[in-house]
Amino acid sequence: MGKAIVRLKDIADRTGFSVNTVSLALRQSPRIPAETAQLIREAAEALNYLPNHVAKSLVSRETKTIGLVLTDITNPTLTHVAQAIELALAERGYSTLFATSNNDEAEEKRVIEMFRSRQVDGMLIYPRSHRELDHIRRLRKANYPVVLLVADPDAGIDAVCVDERRGAYRAVRHLIDLGHRRIGIIDGAHRLGNREKQDGYRQALDEAGIAFDPAWLVDPAGHSVVSGYQAMDQLMAAPKRATAVFAANDTLAIGALRWTQKQGLRVPQDVAIIGFDNIEFAEHAATPLSSINYAVAEVTALAVDRLLSLIAASDQLPEPCISLIDPDLIVRESTLAATPA
Amino acid sequence: MGKAIVRLKDIADRTGFSVNTVSLALRQSPRIPAETAQLIREAAEALNYLPNHVAKSLVSRETKTIGLVLTDITNPTLTHVAQAIELALAERGYSTLFATSNNDEAEEKRVIEMFRSRQVDGMLIYPRSHRELDHIRRLRKANYPVVLLVADPDAGIDAVCVDERRGAYRAVRHLIDLGHRRIGIIDGAHRLGNREKQDGYRQALDEAGIAFDPAWLVDPAGHSVVSGYQAMDQLMAAPKRATAVFAANDTLAIGALRWTQKQGLRVPQDVAIIGFDNIEFAEHAATPLSSINYAVAEVTALAVDRLLSLIAASDQLPEPCISLIDPDLIVRESTLAATPA
Repeated sequence: MGKAIVRLKDIADRTGFSVNTVSLALRQSPRIPAETAQLIREAAEALNYLPNHVAKSLVSRETKTIGLVLTDITNPTLTHVAQAIELALAERGYSTLFATSNNDEAEEKRVIEMFRSRQVDGMLIYPRSHRELDHIRRLRKANYPVVLLVADPDAGIDAVCVDERRGAYRAVRHLIDLGHRRIGIIDGAHRLGNREKQDGYRQALDEAGIAFDPAWLVDPAGHSVVSGYQAMDQLMAAPKRATAVFAANDTLAIGALRWTQKQGLRVPQDVAIIGFDNIEFAEHAATPLSSINYAVAEVTALAVDRLLSLIAASDQLPEPCISLIDPDLIVRESTLAATPA
Repeated sequence: MGKAIVRLKDIADRTGFSVNTVSLALRQSPRIPAETAQLIREAAEALNYLPNHVAKSLVSRETKTIGLVLTDITNPTLTHVAQAIELALAERGYSTLFATSNNDEAEEKRVIEMFRSRQVDGMLIYPRSHRELDHIRRLRKANYPVVLLVADPDAGIDAVCVDERRGAYRAVRHLIDLGHRRIGIIDGAHRLGNREKQDGYRQALDEAGIAFDPAWLVDPAGHSVVSGYQAMDQLMAAPKRATAVFAANDTLAIGALRWTQKQGLRVPQDVAIIGFDNIEFAEHAATPLSSINYAVAEVTALAVDRLLSLIAASDQLPEPCISLIDPDLIVRESTLAATPA
């Protein structure tokens, strides 16, 4: 990992000045003549030296601030995590700044760059794509402390994640154990290349010898209640109707539940529904929703510990570590005692 | 307003250096000898000169970043506003950084100070208290661009707010018009001194000649679904049971609705329920909830316009302007056709 890192010594070697002079110049010390500082800054730029690296190497310039990048500030699971992280970091003496990418690639790059230029001591990131991570990998290679909150196990970047594939597998396996064979899935994440939940769904079907029917997969227009409602319109129009539905998040599941109410269908007798994340509204829905628990406290504790240990590591970061949390199945009335047709 | 503002000229006058030297010194220019810079910085400090003022006065140092302070990142109304503001500011070329006070006074002061020290060009703030605003008034007096998103009309600080008193009045007036005389209120905001919703409730009762019964006012432990559920336990234990409930937000109202389901009571026939904010989950609750609409788009447009006009104002801010938005009543099944006992 280390070979790409530019150190103060590299700039000193290139310019002929001492490491101390280089350090002072990059800190804009008035003790360094303007022309010297200019030469040193040009060399630093040519070597692609990261300014934040300077901040990190100088204890006095630590900002005691962490940047947290969310994909969507209206997602109740993400804001729940954001609050828990903010409180945990405050206990450790750090402030938290939030920014959102709105699931847009250019925005994600822009907010990461904004945090870097404001010299936060490290970042926690929900990346838009679990796989297109080159822009974040570059930060890591430059020894910048960053921890992802969802990622591919091969990311090459520290990550603490709820295992979405495993969670989806558990949800669908639960429906199969209840006797369901025609199981729909409402999930739009694969559009961004994030296939984990769909993979878990397919794995559970495969293991049970159930052939996948493309009509069972519905891509909702968004992740709101209304999107879930509309996705059910489409899913339940299929000739061989699903008897159970796995929604990729609880908000979509609440929309699906609302659809069954309007149609006069009983849950779980006519259609079983399970969501993902276990948000508060799931437990208190018209029919309490089964879900996969997003372990907020565990994600928070592991991610904060990991980020602070990366920040504490001087100069050279340890090898990346990916922590995958195997999520619990929460069974409630929406799947309990389902009797499929 | 202007007399409290310290200008570069004041520091120049005090130290005997030119305005240009003072400006360069405060920008840490290497052209200024260290001792001179030290003298100037000490004078700036003694005069309580705001560093951000420096940034503001130098076009080249505008950060094109706005800080948004939320009281609670898990409140769906606030995050909805936060997202809308972020998108509106992005269109105008600004990035948005978010921070939360978690309704804590010391935290609120800390995050405001953090934003100021990071030289965001301006701030939008949901203050914890609508009245204890001295720390924010100080920023305003120092010509720092700040717009509150909830406040007392006498705040003396620019503000764009949904009129909570008027909204609460409309909600309770609606219940009275339906024939209700025993109307409960679930609201914890007055604990922070934020009495607007309770005032609107009392005003509607007064106008209808209904004497207020203290047993009708329940302070929930928080603002979650569970808090609303528990508040109903307390409210409905009163000897003369309320036939209608006004909850200060929709999440509490959903908890109240859940309580009626568990008790086998019909909504609105046995108890009518109305919330506040008109979040998406309200429309899609087990019984669609009546609510007072929080005009997200209007708050966003007015607040962003106002903040950017303050930022554009050179040196001297215009007089503070308070915009109060009179919110609409949204009637749904939870109050429709109510027939009070």
